[in-house]
Amino acid sequence: MTQDLRIAMIGYGFMGKTHSHAYRTVNNFFPRKHRPVLQVLCARDSAKAKEFAETWGYRHVVGDWRDVVNRSDVDAIDICTPNDLHAEIAIAAANAGKMVLCEKPLSINAAEGERMVRAVESAGVANTVWYNYRRIPAVTLAKQLVAEGRLGRIFHFRAQFLQDWTISADLPQGGTGLWRLDAGAAGSGVTGDLLAHCIDTAQWLNGGISRVVARTETFIRRRMHVLTGKVEDVGIDDACEVLCDFTNGSLGNFESTRYARGHKAKYTFEINGENASVAWDLHDLHRLQYFDHRDEGIIRGWHSVHVTDGDHPYMKQWWVPGLAIGYEHSFIHQLADFLGSLETGAPAHPTFRDALQTGKVCDAILRSAKSSRWEETGVDWRER
Amino acid sequence: MTQDLRIAMIGYGFMGKTHSHAYRTVNNFFPRKHRPVLQVLCARDSAKAKEFAETWGYRHVVGDWRDVVNRSDVDAIDICTPNDLHAEIAIAAANAGKMVLCEKPLSINAAEGERMVRAVESAGVANTVWYNYRRIPAVTLAKQLVAEGRLGRIFHFRAQFLQDWTISADLPQGGTGLWRLDAGAAGSGVTGDLLAHCIDTAQWLNGGISRVVARTETFIRRRMHVLTGKVEDVGIDDACEVLCDFTNGSLGNFESTRYARGHKAKYTFEINGENASVAWDLHDLHRLQYFDHRDEGIIRGWHSVHVTDGDHPYMKQWWVPGLAIGYEHSFIHQLADFLGSLETGAPAHPTFRDALQTGKVCDAILRSAKSSRWEETGVDWRER
Amino acid sequence: MTQDLRIAMIGYGFMGKTHSHAYRTVNNFFPRKHRPVLQVLCARDSAKAKEFAETWGYRHVVGDWRDVVNRSDVDAIDICTPNDLHAEIAIAAANAGKMVLCEKPLSINAAEGERMVRAVESAGVANTVWYNYRRIPAVTLAKQLVAEGRLGRIFHFRAQFLQDWTISADLPQGGTGLWRLDAGAAGSGVTGDLLAHCIDTAQWLNGGISRVVARTETFIRRRMHVLTGKVEDVGIDDACEVLCDFTNGSLGNFESTRYARGHKAKYTFEINGENASVAWDLHDLHRLQYFDHRDEGIIRGWHSVHVTDGDHPYMKQWWVPGLAIGYEHSFIHQLADFLGSLETGAPAHPTFRDALQTGKVCDAILRSAKSSRWEETGVDWRER
Amino acid sequence: MTQDLRIAMIGYGFMGKTHSHAYRTVNNFFPRKHRPVLQVLCARDSAKAKEFAETWGYRHVVGDWRDVVNRSDVDAIDICTPNDLHAEIAIAAANAGKMVLCEKPLSINAAEGERMVRAVESAGVANTVWYNYRRIPAVTLAKQLVAEGRLGRIFHFRAQFLQDWTISADLPQGGTGLWRLDAGAAGSGVTGDLLAHCIDTAQWLNGGISRVVARTETFIRRRMHVLTGKVEDVGIDDACEVLCDFTNGSLGNFESTRYARGHKAKYTFEINGENASVAWDLHDLHRLQYFDHRDEGIIRGWHSVHVTDGDHPYMKQWWVPGLAIGYEHSFIHQLADFLGSLETGAPAHPTFRDALQTGKVCDAILRSAKSSRWEETGVDWRER
Repeated sequence: MTQDLRIAMIGYGFMGKTHSHAYRTVNNFFPRKHRPVLQVLCARDSAKAKEFAETWGYRHVVGDWRDVVNRSDVDAIDICTPNDLHAEIAIAAANAGKMVLCEKPLSINAAEGERMVRAVESAGVANTVWYNYRRIPAVTLAKQLVAEGRLGRIFHFRAQFLQDWTISADLPQGGTGLWRLDAGAAGSGVTGDLLAHCIDTAQWLNGGISRVVARTETFIRRRMHVLTGKVEDVGIDDACEVLCDFTNGSLGNFESTRYARGHKAKYTFEINGENASVAWDLHDLHRLQYFDHRDEGIIRGWHSVHVTDGDHPYMKQWWVPGLAIGYEHSFIHQLADFLGSLETGAPAHPTFRDALQTGKVCDAILRSAKSSRWEETGVDWRER
Repeated sequence: MTQDLRIAMIGYGFMGKTHSHAYRTVNNFFPRKHRPVLQVLCARDSAKAKEFAETWGYRHVVGDWRDVVNRSDVDAIDICTPNDLHAEIAIAAANAGKMVLCEKPLSINAAEGERMVRAVESAGVANTVWYNYRRIPAVTLAKQLVAEGRLGRIFHFRAQFLQDWTISADLPQGGTGLWRLDAGAAGSGVTGDLLAHCIDTAQWLNGGISRVVARTETFIRRRMHVLTGKVEDVGIDDACEVLCDFTNGSLGNFESTRYARGHKAKYTFEINGENASVAWDLHDLHRLQYFDHRDEGIIRGWHSVHVTDGDHPYMKQWWVPGLAIGYEHSFIHQLADFLGSLETGAPAHPTFRDALQTGKVCDAILRSAKSSRWEETGVDWRER
Repeated sequence: MTQDLRIAMIGYGFMGKTHSHAYRTVNNFFPRKHRPVLQVLCARDSAKAKEFAETWGYRHVVGDWRDVVNRSDVDAIDICTPNDLHAEIAIAAANAGKMVLCEKPLSINAAEGERMVRAVESAGVANTVWYNYRRIPAVTLAKQLVAEGRLGRIFHFRAQFLQDWTISADLPQGGTGLWRLDAGAAGSGVTGDLLAHCIDTAQWLNGGISRVVARTETFIRRRMHVLTGKVEDVGIDDACEVLCDFTNGSLGNFESTRYARGHKAKYTFEINGENASVAWDLHDLHRLQYFDHRDEGIIRGWHSVHVTDGDHPYMKQWWVPGLAIGYEHSFIHQLADFLGSLETGAPAHPTFRDALQTGKVCDAILRSAKSSRWEETGVDWRER
Repeated sequence: MTQDLRIAMIGYGFMGKTHSHAYRTVNNFFPRKHRPVLQVLCARDSAKAKEFAETWGYRHVVGDWRDVVNRSDVDAIDICTPNDLHAEIAIAAANAGKMVLCEKPLSINAAEGERMVRAVESAGVANTVWYNYRRIPAVTLAKQLVAEGRLGRIFHFRAQFLQDWTISADLPQGGTGLWRLDAGAAGSGVTGDLLAHCIDTAQWLNGGISRVVARTETFIRRRMHVLTGKVEDVGIDDACEVLCDFTNGSLGNFESTRYARGHKAKYTFEINGENASVAWDLHDLHRLQYFDHRDEGIIRGWHSVHVTDGDHPYMKQWWVPGLAIGYEHSFIHQLADFLGSLETGAPAHPTFRDALQTGKVCDAILRSAKSSRWEETGVDWRER
């Protein structure tokens, strides 16, 4: 009755690990018709690839992604490479009729993203982008509360993604685990890496962003580059600050940085509506803060909701109330929903088209940082 | 239309300061018919007494409390001496027909307290004991929620009063600011000093305590005594742990210590009822945590109530929502209520009789610590 | 040995209360040569003025401020009127040789502020502006940590001032307690009312702000005006979002609004430096969050500092460790420092000149909100 | 090079799921020589057993545990049955030379536990009890800090395990998911279920408990019993309060209940030492609170350590700093350590003998609850 879904994974880094874990685990907790099979691991460094494949149980190891996309023993391509390779691989995979699951951000820029959207849509293949944070149960609960209209008219949306891991001037551009500092591989710095998460969630929760004004900064302007071995100008943004307008009339404020000492991965958002507000923080990911002005006055206050009950999103499949799950489960949930969409034929949000809207906002942000002006995003947001 | 209430203060230490401030400030915020006047300050050290009197505007300075209790220009005696003097002064003051406001604990032991109660009651003078924490607005709000029956049947009451200021073995017994380490002056250690606060609030919120089992400990057993200049056995308890039964069938758990590293004055309590729970912490005294099981499931969680709204107890008299008041205001509130009771003729809770019930529990605790058995308290609690 | 400092208070609203309390209380806790005397209360509504004067013990009540500034029995004028009267009164008082204490913001705009600065400086009178939040002990501690260089190079400064009290469309413009909604009386909305506090603290902690880009919004655009009785366009800003550059190279992000449901007076700031960070929140004003990267790795984390110890700013004068003070104490501290400056002859920060720098930033923010461009502030910040 | 470790799981309930997940996942994250294989699932309800086996990939399904313990294709027996079956199965398994992994509590009482210890020790088989909370990284970090002597002399240990899921009087005794309410199957109520966790951690962190005084309560005294269909007396304890002495001279205070409205699984502990303190809360399991009195005074405060760095226990194997793991990982960690012990020959703590010490304390607690006296535990704690 179950059906194998043969996965080819391109890349074996941090995201290769989170995704592999999701593939191996999803059916243990979520009853789905499709059963992912770890069919092929593809990576250039064959020794490391072999070790990774053995750890996770991949059946085959391949060195060149071009040898993978057309394989008849593969149903879906999962792209976990640095950002600059996403487009080429995704388009080839789509053209070969494979489903495509792509790590975020979708692409280096929106133009590239447009081509990727056209490829998957004209090929008619299932596609999704791993903006995993939507599936943290507390975040999904926030979406549910917003969708039910509990907040009323929205006035404010604010989000931060604060880290502190690149403050040392000794970190090089590029190298193992450090391609995110290399503008060639990453496209941008915190804008594509961190802020893109905030934008994805923001538009999902609060609708399209119409215009932005932004300020980016590179605090450490020269670093050794691992490819050349020389100290070179740094091409990425270390910090990015954004004001924006949402089409629903609310104001947005975003900040992302890798120079916020004391914050490892502090991704937060808050929405203030006429009647109610919600707030969330990745550092305490299992809690949702909820304030409802309609509560009786003397006991009105932020509810600290421990999102671990059976009636909370995804949580019925896990443990019992009070027992938290972690970061990695967001990938399992996204995969469970992706597998569900294969059964129903519904789109697997965020689709490539959804993720393109995030890319448009990021592009406008980077344009504004250069022009010092407000820039239109061109986003036409709707849940598709 | 206003009427002077001439106060004689016995003692000028920490509590002398909090009370003097209350007398000087209460009418600025709380409209009351009576207007406290700082008439007499009484203390043995005349230099310090004079300085204190000047700072606070006391009209007269006297050295011996016996010269104060019969003065015709005094309406009320406020006792802020070490505990061992409370009884003698209070009884003399009552016999002289003065109102008596007494710092907590009421007395060294319940037997002494019984005599004090008889004195004020047979004299028919207004009397109150400064168990000030009842009047922290968040604590008063807790009382209101309990009194409204929101919690339903009560299962658990727990409280802690944790400090860490006597861990150093170099602290002497007695001396300025340290009479609390001298069993002769203080009667007991943390039991009378800290736990008494917990017991007062507990019985006020949850009714009488019928029996207790307790364990006390003196971690540092010998200290220099300032009166003798010699290293002597320490007579006070450094820590006190208590289990108890309330007459309403709920279980109590109390802990007080001066050896809890990291806690300056962490006085907390929590009540768990069938339908709802409340929790409070002196370290964040402006907040009350409230959980109501009747909240809708998906947004159920502890409400963090910032007790600064106009409809919260006492807060209409202060600033605007969001702006906190502090520790000292609890004394102003108690005084405002005391002055109010002079107008209505109602008792000024906690009265001497109320405070005696706390003393009975403390006595039973100290007895149990010696006997290693459960001890009956003999408390006959009711709000009088 | 003490010397009276005769105060004339103009206005009797919320700020009249906080200041009067400070005048009455400061000498009880802070030994100072000067002893404020509540000499004159000045307000137009004579019934209310009389009641206020009686409550607080003002000796005289006057209806017109012009009758006050030249009185020979007055040493200092304290301006607690709506913002549009600050300049005229302050200049007249300075010209009459009086010390001037002015509620914030200094003025409706920087041009007006320039004239006020010239007036007090050419008259050589002591002057200060009640940006009280600098003197919350936790905020003063943050200043101390920054001044000691503990944070190292600063990368980020962010601050919010979030309220929710004007969300109801039924609130009128103007009227008792509501002049802050009337652009005529207030000058601007949240920018002058809330954001000005953030800017004052920001420049004090982190140096001058050189340029800004901002977005303001008026969510409810028409409200009944109490003066005309008609529904009219609202002239104030309900929300204000700002990005800025500090002259030290760090990035700033500010947000103020009265439409953040769930926040009564949530004023927060955070500074991220190379080595350490600090964060504060008015809703828990007695705590400072401090992170130091130089702490040992495995126990590294934000320190939640309960700013109530004797070695914390101002706290030696109050109670004992663990016992919090509140909002109003910031005024007492500012007054204590003002009185201290009278003894030393040092400026009483924030002086009118300091506050003018805040005004320049606010002006630039409002200009940017209109121009949709980055605007230079013209601030020349230094601690004077 | 890897070696299969063939597991037979007895039971398929909540714990069957957590353990099965650990067996399937451990080698993906922790390099170990042994590779668990899900060989046999044993359970009485064959339909449910089959479904469970299919979900998790068990090779064989068996109905009677007696048919499992002697199978030659099985290396280790994992006991996840109700408590009353632990002893019989474990002893049979040990006698058959199988390794035994047993869910906690080890046994219904200490006498039974003694027999189990004798069985595994005389058979010389690897044995461990799933007191999983030791392996939450923040808890393991607490152990490390204590073991390094950072806390100095210990004064206090306190722990709570608070739940609220049995408050409804409609819950029956026994039945699916409810055998914990049936004294016949569970042995005791919260004492063996919740408090046992606290005791295990307490002795591990703070050494042996020498004597206890306790109070248990059954708030709802009659419930329908699923086996008889009749309303019967409830045999379990709903709440348990304990004071105790540790052999190191510190005082202990424990509380466990299923009647603490608002707490789902609030397991907390705190240790106060002369120099430092630690505190932890399962509801925010990824954080450890650490206070060190040796920190400089003005920035002294509780460190909120986000236990997600590579130098924190177990965390190098997971994600990157800031990204939390959850409840289930504690089982994976315990399994990783168990597999590690197979390589080194060291005991796999907590061994049956360790767990017996917990059982002795629980027995003394239940004895004290009946006798109303302090009871000696007979514990001879040492890390073996």
